[in-house]
Order: sequence, then structure tokens, then C-alpha cells
Amino acid sequence: MSNTFGKAIRVTLFGESHGPAVGAVVDGLPPGLKIDMDRMNAELARRSGLESVSTARREPDAVEFLSGEKDGYTQGTPLTIVIRNTSAKPGDYEALGGAARPSHADYTGYVKYLGFADASGGGHFSGRLTAPLVAAGAILQTALEEKGISIGTHISRMRGIADRAFRDDPAEDIKLLKGLGLPVLDPDAAAEMIKEIETARVAGDSVGGILETAVCGLDAGFGEPWFDSLESQISHILFSIPAVKGVAFGAGFSLADMTGSEANDCLSVQDDRIRALSNNGGGVDGGISNGMPLIFRAAVKPTPSIALPQRTVDLASGKDTVIEIKGRHDPAIVHRAAPVANAAAAIAVADLIARRYGYMALRSE
Amino acid sequence: MSNTFGKAIRVTLFGESHGPAVGAVVDGLPPGLKIDMDRMNAELARRSGLESVSTARREPDAVEFLSGEKDGYTQGTPLTIVIRNTSAKPGDYEALGGAARPSHADYTGYVKYLGFADASGGGHFSGRLTAPLVAAGAILQTALEEKGISIGTHISRMRGIADRAFRDDPAEDIKLLKGLGLPVLDPDAAAEMIKEIETARVAGDSVGGILETAVCGLDAGFGEPWFDSLESQISHILFSIPAVKGVAFGAGFSLADMTGSEANDCLSVQDDRIRALSNNGGGVDGGISNGMPLIFRAAVKPTPSIALPQRTVDLASGKDTVIEIKGRHDPAIVHRAAPVANAAAAIAVADLIARRYGYMALRSE
Amino acid sequence: MSNTFGKAIRVTLFGESHGPAVGAVVDGLPPGLKIDMDRMNAELARRSGLESVSTARREPDAVEFLSGEKDGYTQGTPLTIVIRNTSAKPGDYEALGGAARPSHADYTGYVKYLGFADASGGGHFSGRLTAPLVAAGAILQTALEEKGISIGTHISRMRGIADRAFRDDPAEDIKLLKGLGLPVLDPDAAAEMIKEIETARVAGDSVGGILETAVCGLDAGFGEPWFDSLESQISHILFSIPAVKGVAFGAGFSLADMTGSEANDCLSVQDDRIRALSNNGGGVDGGISNGMPLIFRAAVKPTPSIALPQRTVDLASGKDTVIEIKGRHDPAIVHRAAPVANAAAAIAVADLIARRYGYMALRSE
Amino acid sequence: MSNTFGKAIRVTLFGESHGPAVGAVVDGLPPGLKIDMDRMNAELARRSGLESVSTARREPDAVEFLSGEKDGYTQGTPLTIVIRNTSAKPGDYEALGGAARPSHADYTGYVKYLGFADASGGGHFSGRLTAPLVAAGAILQTALEEKGISIGTHISRMRGIADRAFRDDPAEDIKLLKGLGLPVLDPDAAAEMIKEIETARVAGDSVGGILETAVCGLDAGFGEPWFDSLESQISHILFSIPAVKGVAFGAGFSLADMTGSEANDCLSVQDDRIRALSNNGGGVDGGISNGMPLIFRAAVKPTPSIALPQRTVDLASGKDTVIEIKGRHDPAIVHRAAPVANAAAAIAVADLIARRYGYMALRSE
Repeated sequence: MSNTFGKAIRVTLFGESHGPAVGAVVDGLPPGLKIDMDRMNAELARRSGLESVSTARREPDAVEFLSGEKDGYTQGTPLTIVIRNTSAKPGDYEALGGAARPSHADYTGYVKYLGFADASGGGHFSGRLTAPLVAAGAILQTALEEKGISIGTHISRMRGIADRAFRDDPAEDIKLLKGLGLPVLDPDAAAEMIKEIETARVAGDSVGGILETAVCGLDAGFGEPWFDSLESQISHILFSIPAVKGVAFGAGFSLADMTGSEANDCLSVQDDRIRALSNNGGGVDGGISNGMPLIFRAAVKPTPSIALPQRTVDLASGKDTVIEIKGRHDPAIVHRAAPVANAAAAIAVADLIARRYGYMALRSE
Repeated sequence: MSNTFGKAIRVTLFGESHGPAVGAVVDGLPPGLKIDMDRMNAELARRSGLESVSTARREPDAVEFLSGEKDGYTQGTPLTIVIRNTSAKPGDYEALGGAARPSHADYTGYVKYLGFADASGGGHFSGRLTAPLVAAGAILQTALEEKGISIGTHISRMRGIADRAFRDDPAEDIKLLKGLGLPVLDPDAAAEMIKEIETARVAGDSVGGILETAVCGLDAGFGEPWFDSLESQISHILFSIPAVKGVAFGAGFSLADMTGSEANDCLSVQDDRIRALSNNGGGVDGGISNGMPLIFRAAVKPTPSIALPQRTVDLASGKDTVIEIKGRHDPAIVHRAAPVANAAAAIAVADLIARRYGYMALRSE
Repeated sequence: MSNTFGKAIRVTLFGESHGPAVGAVVDGLPPGLKIDMDRMNAELARRSGLESVSTARREPDAVEFLSGEKDGYTQGTPLTIVIRNTSAKPGDYEALGGAARPSHADYTGYVKYLGFADASGGGHFSGRLTAPLVAAGAILQTALEEKGISIGTHISRMRGIADRAFRDDPAEDIKLLKGLGLPVLDPDAAAEMIKEIETARVAGDSVGGILETAVCGLDAGFGEPWFDSLESQISHILFSIPAVKGVAFGAGFSLADMTGSEANDCLSVQDDRIRALSNNGGGVDGGISNGMPLIFRAAVKPTPSIALPQRTVDLASGKDTVIEIKGRHDPAIVHRAAPVANAAAAIAVADLIARRYGYMALRSE
Repeated sequence: MSNTFGKAIRVTLFGESHGPAVGAVVDGLPPGLKIDMDRMNAELARRSGLESVSTARREPDAVEFLSGEKDGYTQGTPLTIVIRNTSAKPGDYEALGGAARPSHADYTGYVKYLGFADASGGGHFSGRLTAPLVAAGAILQTALEEKGISIGTHISRMRGIADRAFRDDPAEDIKLLKGLGLPVLDPDAAAEMIKEIETARVAGDSVGGILETAVCGLDAGFGEPWFDSLESQISHILFSIPAVKGVAFGAGFSLADMTGSEANDCLSVQDDRIRALSNNGGGVDGGISNGMPLIFRAAVKPTPSIALPQRTVDLASGKDTVIEIKGRHDPAIVHRAAPVANAAAAIAVADLIARRYGYMALRSE
């Protein structure tokens, strides 16, 4: 009852990690949107991660459109994206028996679905379902870019290592990120982070991180009070991404230590438009975009699948046991979540634009 | 198009700060829920704040039911809550002329509503709309308590001052909080926070803080993958609360510095049920409740209305100006947001229960 | 869980017949829509019925806006319409004791709400809730008229008496209907229908009828396949109106006796636009408007409240009994339902326009 | 933005007639529902029509589950149904050039999708999309039957030929219908209808009809005032079915000629439960089921694709032309729409049950 996000543009996700396919139905797209397959494949490749630091499971993530596409354009009818699961090896997972992997959805999914759901590879909870989300987001990113709205995400922190912040105008940083293997603005920080990931891999352990996303070029006036504030909309879809455990806008949690006079973003007319002199609000006031870059962060927990022994419960027997997860797992997924954050932001923003000006407004002139 | 939250239990908010009334329509309540007016009034009084630290504007917040209530019980039909605005003094605000208050919705609301919306007192964006939200939440808190689910919120941090954490089982802490003026578990921390608030008041400045909420007694299995994860649902409604700029579950942003072996919550059978040995996940795995206490934090920015002079723009003339806000304003609203967080959590959780077992399941046996 | 209609423009109804008030929250309206109170009051008066043929209960139906209105225009925030119940006389109904009125919602409401709902005067099921619906519809009718879209409804049939059909271009008929007491195009048919209503009144009985509505000026292209076809959208809201038991478009049920060659609407270019040479489809092909007048009919059952003795069950005792309904009841409500059909059509059409072009598109240039 | 029906159980349709596939995502199903493939295939075969009277296009309609199914049971995760289009012959349709088929969606779809949608075979508007709807409905029909709720549809009228009515208790008639080729209760009427269909075929013309559906075993209390009345819910999904132009409950449009004393359904206690002594309301009072059989009719227009020459417009040139449709077309589709009506009713009823008692209530004990 809840696999659909959005009101004007609606994305419905489906699939299990080791079932036939994962996919999405995107409803509410206007006719005639260009589908840039190179762009989509680049985003999907990014989601698949770097060879050096990611899981060995390498699916081509070949997108098939079951409906809604014709000659490289959206028809305007529901667009169905399907990505077949080609290299699933249930055996790797079945070796776990009924032992619930800690901090995975194994136990909660078992309770929720009464044991009827296929849990292998995470089943419906697998991060693999972010692939169709990225594909859907790529189409909307293309449409938004034609309207001057660009989106980029970097890893702002990992194990104490901090990347430099986005520049006040992040447009150039967003371009820069497109060419990077690991989405980190400061090359030294990138090198250190790769070292951390390698250390974790060797130890059979894992790391997480903080993603910071910028959306440039969004005009003031988008977002709906009360319940569909821009922040509610963005956080709703971000918390759908597995492993995200925190979302903050602008100065976020550090606002708790500031005074109003430190935190407030004063306004001034510059170049004939109203601009804020700081961006502690992350581009949102009262739930509505204020025309400044939209800036938010997502905390990504360390990959829960680790090779180290962990105490857990065998769901079949109901007894305590110890698990060592041997399958193909990433010591880090935070970099792979970056294109997912971009896609999520594109979907959330496009939906709010379509509510205000209609889905036809997503067409380029 | 977005003043409604929830799918099974749906709350629709309306009103302007200086209009006739603020209110809510709550649809999807089962018939026969007891409406405990003492409880509701206590929550509303809490939202109005402490005399010593809050705004001088003291409205009685008298709740009137226009529909859906009979003899102290819900009818099962839409419940309409109305709270009249009795002490509005537009003059205080009109003195500001067209100057947009920084980090308020004055500018964004002006763009969104093209100048047709009444901005005095924050208009539709005013925190005053949280009063009907608290009233609606009080009814659901009563219903949830009859099912053994209790909710409490404390200020975990303000200007560097930290309250002690919730105990592993927060049930006793939740009871403790009900009797406190300022919702802070450690009396010393409370005293220091009051001092900070007073300092800010004297300076014509303001402070924010971090709220931490615990939901006890929620069974495993609630929440919907993907898009209506428990985290998505909770964050969606929390980010509707004005001034909330960050939401995190369990260890939240600190997970970025941890390894998987540190962060993972191992499982064990205890007293015939499966329990986690730590709660870094905040009671949620894969978007679904795991039976542990649900723990989340919300970052509340400092009250943006301050008496100190600030640079801003006059929306009428389109020219830079300086604003000094003289009206009745709180140096802190974070404590007043605590009952709002409780109400929001109650609404979000009740909605997920009603999706799984129907709205009839919210009735007590 | 279902008192809301619409996706872009959303109307939430509330109230009980003998409670404090009935009303509606209208969310998704753009800012700056003119609220023509004379128009709204005229529609509400029409809904109240003719003195000669309607119930003696004459409430002024004074509309109060609790939110969303300022200086005669919509603010863009949720518009809350409240109409107080001033002349409720519960005594009239309480005399019925627990006897369920046949073909009313007394029995079904009792089962649904377990006896907690106030059933007097029909409670939440009362036709009185159509008053705020008419008020909401009046605002949208004004907005649509500024875009060249007009709506009118006549009684096309009652007790075997048929009104003449709408002319091929119903625009003039729609104007004509605005000046009529009983909305019947043929004065002779009107006279005969009034005679039928009087006959029913004298007999302590009642009559129903068929309403036919025309929407002129709607361009081709509105409606959404599959589930929000123009027909689905219109029928959904029409069947919400109490007493409506059938809805048909164009030739409707008579299509069952026709061949394809008789039924099909051939096309031709006329005056530089594509037009159909007949309108058996009622202006809808494939669920999408085709630019012809939108024509639909609603079957309204006879008022179920009649003075004649009827067998029924006493819900309190669970025993058979006989009921004679003595309260203030109409021998006919079909004419009072005509402005409700107009309002319903306006809401449904405005919602579809707002989905395609945004709620901002409802503003006049 | 509208290819989804239902709130608790949600069906999202996708596909084009001559694209790769048609399908549906069904979200909100509980885990552990038995998927009876024989039943599903029988319903699909029924939808494909009788060899003698239907289109020669004979696709096997082989259902593939991309997600949500495991070992013959629902997992509880979104169930994705895909039916590949195997025998599409675009050539048949391309021969038409850009000539819009009268009373099809060719013209309206062209306007709506600006020419970007694939119109061959009706494209997204094709009746072929009812196949996944039937498949989804079959799963819910199985679940409802385990709760004692059965559904059946017959052709009650075609070209002046009337089938006998359902018996007061239609349960036996529903069983009878399962074994019939043409869903007509009276064999003589069936023979005459087949003759009409044959006559139309020979003439290059087509016929329509009226479908009457009975739902037995539904308890009182389902349906939601105001906007999700049982009638609104049923009509909404029925009007989604191509060619449906009218929907009526119980006595429907004939209520317009009756008096209240003739139309009202009196009540009486029989066998310890409250029953109506007639069923002019079709099992619905005040929008809520009353425990009597739910009875409704749908008017199905004649198949618009006919071989006879018709005036129309060439969309490419914008000029008048004459069309003769040569492809594989049915002289009647009304019998093929009968299983679609059953599926639609099952989905609508299951959704209302799931709202009241949760999606878990659809599981059999």
C-alpha cells in the first residue's frame, strides 16, 4: 500500500533481489520527454559502484521498457522500467539458513510477511530496487536540466574524514562530480576514504558516511505547507533508501547550538532578485524553496552485511546463533547511494513542480 | 494539495494565525474512541509553553468539535477540531510593513501565494497550526496507550548542553516527562537550558535545540517498504513542524563514523521474544519496526523572530531594509515543539497500524 | 478515510445534520480566485429548494470562512467553509426512537459506526452536507466560467414526464436554467412535474427523477486513462450525492440496443476544429474529453422519507415495527440536487485541469 | 497520475496494445494469499471471448509474475503481473494511416499525448489492458470466496433481448454462470443474442449490451461516506473499463418513475438478521452495504471498430476522410467485459474491506 511515491509524478517500485526482476512504473510523465539512455546508463553504472571498492556482483542493469516509451521519448502513458536479475546466486544466501542478518530487514520482514516473502539477497528490501529508482530519476534529471535545474551529491564525511563543503554556488561542483569515480570534491579526502573502505574490507567489516546533495536552479515558491513541505517531500523519499538513518537541511543538527542571530539567513536584493546572505536553512523557509541552492545531507549507516561473526537468532528454530556473512558484499555503499540521492531529489522536485504547474510543465519548450 | 497527512488515518490542517480559527479534520478514526479532554488540554497547555520562557501571547486554545464527536467519543465520522484565534493583535505585525522576517516564510509565502495570503503572524505558516495537530494527536495517544504504546519527548541538547539519554527501556522516562515543566530528564541540564533561554531573551536573541522522542510498546512489523517506511512516515510529518531542520533515527548521523561491527544491532532471544542487544537503528530495520523502542531526534532551529536588527528586503518596495521584530515572540520554541513531536509520532504510528489491521483496530477491546 | 475527493483540487467534507455545523476544507486552490458571494448564495438558495415544493426547514445556509479567504479572494491556503446548523430540531427525529427509516442510512450507519454516530436528521449521511459541496463548487464554477466553461443541469424526467433534451450546443440552455425556479427547459413539462410533486406531498409520498448535466467549453484532452477517466471522475463524485443510483454518459443505457454504426460519433473538420457529428458518447472517448459538450445523467431515487406507514426494524430492540415519518421532509429532492450536480461537475473538471496544467492554471489571466 | 485504483489494495495498470507487454502492479496484498492459476487462466480465457463470436486475435495471455509471488502464494510485497503481447500485427492498424477511428480514443489520445503515444491497436487505451485487471481480480476473487463472498455477471440485455433477472438470492445463478460460454442465464435469450452478434458480424457492424453483476455474501457496513461510497468506488472502476457508458445500482434509472413508497426497501428481522424485503437499492443504503446482494448494471456500447465506412478526420493531414476498419475486431465485446466486471467488483470490494479491517483481513483464517 505504499510502494508509490509522489502525487503528480508517481513512481511505483517492485521486485525482489533474487526474483525475476526489479522495476518501476512511472505515471504522470508528460508526453515527449527525451529519454537519454547514455545518461541513464551512466547513473546506473555509478549506482553499481567502483570495481575496486564494491561488491563483486556485477549485473549489467540493462533497462527494458515494457510500456510508455516510443522512439526514445516518453509517450505520456505509464512508463514501465524493468531490470532483470541475471546473476542472482541464491546459494550464497541460502547458506545462511534462517539466521537473521543483524540490522537487515530479515527479522522485520519475516514478521511483516509471515515468512511468505523471499528473503534471499534481502528480497524486496534489497538495495537492488534502487536501480529502477535511479533509472526513473535519470529521466527527470534530464528534464530538469533543460529547465536549468541541476543536482549533485558528494560524500561529505566518512569515519571522521570530511570532504570540503559545496561552494556557495554549487553548480560548478555538480559538474565536477559527474567526472569523479568516488564522489568526493577534495582529492585528498577521497584518497583517505578509499583507504578506510579498504581497511574495512580487509577486516571483514564495513563503513558508512554522510551524503550531501545540492539542487541548483530551483526557483522560490515550490513546496506545500503543511504536510508536503519541501523538506517533508525530500526526507520522505530519502528515508526510503536503505541504510539512510538521518536527513538534515542546511546547518541541520548544528542549529541546536546556534542562536537565532547566528542561524537566520538575512535577505538582500542582488542582481534584481532577492537572495539570502547565508544558507543555514538549506534553501527552504517555511517548507517552501527560497531560490537559494537546496542543500541537504543524508546519513548512511555502514553496510550491515559484514564477514565478522555476529550474534543473532535463527528464525526457523527461534534459537540464538552466530552468523558470518560470506556472500558478495560491499564494505561501503555510501558512494553507490549518491546517484540514488540525486534520483530521489529529481523525483521529489519534479513532483512539486508538476503539482504547481501541471505535469505538462515538465516538457521543455 | 498537501494539507493532509496519512492514508488510513488522515489529518487535514487549516487556518491562519490571525484569521478566525485554526483547525483540523481527522478522517478515518474508528467509532467509539474515548476523547480524554483533560489529556488533550494538558497537551495543548504544554504546547503553549512555560510562562517564564514563552511568548506572552496566551490563548486559551479552547477546542471546539464541529463534527465527529458525541458524548465524549468519536462518532467514526470526520472529526473537526476548531480552535478560535482570540487574542490576535495584527497591529504588532503590521508594524513590520512589508519587510520579510529572515528565515521565516514571509518571502517564500509571498512568492507562492502571489501576495494573496494573509502573512500577519505567519499566516498559514504560523506555528499556531500545531495546536490542532496536538489536539488530534492527543486522541490517538490515548488510543495507543490503551494498546500499551506510550510516547515521550525530551530536549536532548541545546547550545551545547546535553540532557542524559533515554534509558534502554524509556517507559519510565516517558512517565517522568509528563510531570515536568521543561521536558528535560536531567534537572541540572534543565536548569542550564533555562539559563540559556533567559540569556537569549535578554539579548533579544533566541535558541533552538534537539528533541529526542521514544515510542515504547510498538510491536515488530509496522512500516511499509519502500516509500512508506516507518522512517519516511515519521520524518514526513516531523518536517511539517515549523523549525524542524533535521531528523535522525537511533545513532543517526554518528553512524557515519562507525564501522558495521560497531553499528549493527545483534539479536538474541530474551524472555521468549527476539530482541536487539543495542539500538543504533532506533527500532527500525529495513523501514519496519523491530520491536525495540522507536527512538528519533528532530533538530529545531532557533526561533527566527528576534528583536536584534537584521538585514532584509521590503517586499512591497523591493528594497533592502533593516528589521527589528518587536512582537510577542519566544526566545525558544523547542520545548513547545515537544508535545507536537509526540502528537506527530502518534498520528504516524496509528496510521501504519490502521493500514495493516484496519482503522477498527485502533479501538480498545 | 474517504471524505476527500480530488487529487489536485481536494475537497474534504465534514459534519452531521444536527451537530454544530457542516463544512468543507478545499485544498489546492490557487491564490487570487475571486469568491463571488452572490453566486455562491444563489447556488445555496437553489439547493435549499422551492418554497412550494420543499421541506419547511429553511436554514439561511450562511457561509463562514474559517481560513483561506481574504478580501473576497482565495489566499491559496486551505479554504475552510463552515455552515452552522441553526434550526435543527432533534425532537422531530427522536420521536422515531430506534426505528430505521427504510432506504436511509440509519441501519447501515448503525452497523458501520456501532451506534456511536449521531443519526438524527441523517447525521453524517444527511443531504445537508451537500451545502458546503455547493459552496465549494460555486467558487470553481466562477473560475471555470472565466475560462469559457459553463455548467447547467435540468430535470430530464420524472414519473414518466420528459423534459426536452439539451440543444446540440447547450450554452443557451445553461443560461436559461439560471433563471428558472424548477430547472426544467420545457415549461409544460415543468408544470406537470410540479403537479406530480404536489400529488406526492398530499399522499404522504415522494418522487425522484433524472438529472441531465451539460458542461460546455471543455477542450479535448482532459481525463486520465485508465482509472481516472473523465467518466470515472464524474461518476465518483456524483455517486457521493445521496439518492443518486445511476450515472450515464451520452446515450448511456440505450447504447445497449444500438449497433456500432448507429452509436458511433463520426468526426469532421468544422470551422478549423475537429468535431463529432453526433454526441452519443457524451463528449468522452476513451475516458478523455473530445471537445464536444460533456453530457451526463444521474438517476435520483424518490426521497426515502415518506409519511406513509412502512415496515422496518427498531435498532434498539431488534424487533420488527412500523414507521411513519412525521418530520419536515421533501416530497422531491431532485430539483435541489441539480445545483449539487453542477458543483460536483465543476470540482471534478477543475481537478482534471489542475492535474494537467497545475492548480495555478485555474487562475484567470 | 491516475493509473492506480484503490487505497488499501492498489492496482496500477500499464502497457500498450502493440508494445512489449501489458501488466499491473498490485500493492497492499497480504502475504500468503493463494494464487489459483487455474482460476486465473479461466477468467482470462473468458475475457478472450468465445471463438465463434470474438476477434480472431488469440493471444494465450500467459501471465508472468515479475515480483511478489513465491511458490503459488503472494509474498505480501508488490505483485507484478506481466502479459506479453505476442501476436501484435501493427500492419493491420497502420493501414489506417492517421485516420481517427470514430468513438475510439484515437483523436482524444492524440490531443492528450501530442502524438507521442503509440496509437496502434488502441495503444494504452486498448481493451487489452483489462487482461492484467482480470488477473489481479482473480486473486482477490479467490480470497473473497474463502470469506463467503461470490461474484457473477450476466448480459441482462442486448438489442432489445432481455435475459431473466438474477434470483433474489443470486448465489446459485453465480455458480451457473461459471459453466456458461455466453454469460446469459436464460438459454433462449442466449441463443437470440448470439444470433444478433452473428447478424452484426455479417453486416460489418457491432452490438453492445448491459451487464448485470451480483456480489453475494458481503456483510453490512462496507463503503465510506461521503466520497468513497460503495457506489462511488464501484462506478469509479467500472467506468475505467473501455466501452462502459452507464452504471446503475438496484432499480437504477427506473427509480425516476417510481414513488418513494414503491422504491423504498422495507426492513424486517429474518433468521436473526435484518434483511430488506425488496432490493431496489441494489444492496446499498447511504453509500454503505446493507447485507443484501449487491446488484449493479453497466451499459457497454457497441464495439466502435466496424467494417462499414464512416466519416472521420485524418489526424496527419487534418482533413476529412472515410474509414473502413479492416483489422481483427469483435462484433461484440460485452460478453468479454463480464469477467472484467467481476474482477473490478472484487478489487473494489476487497479494497473497502481492507480499509476497515486492514489488508491482513483478506487472509483466510
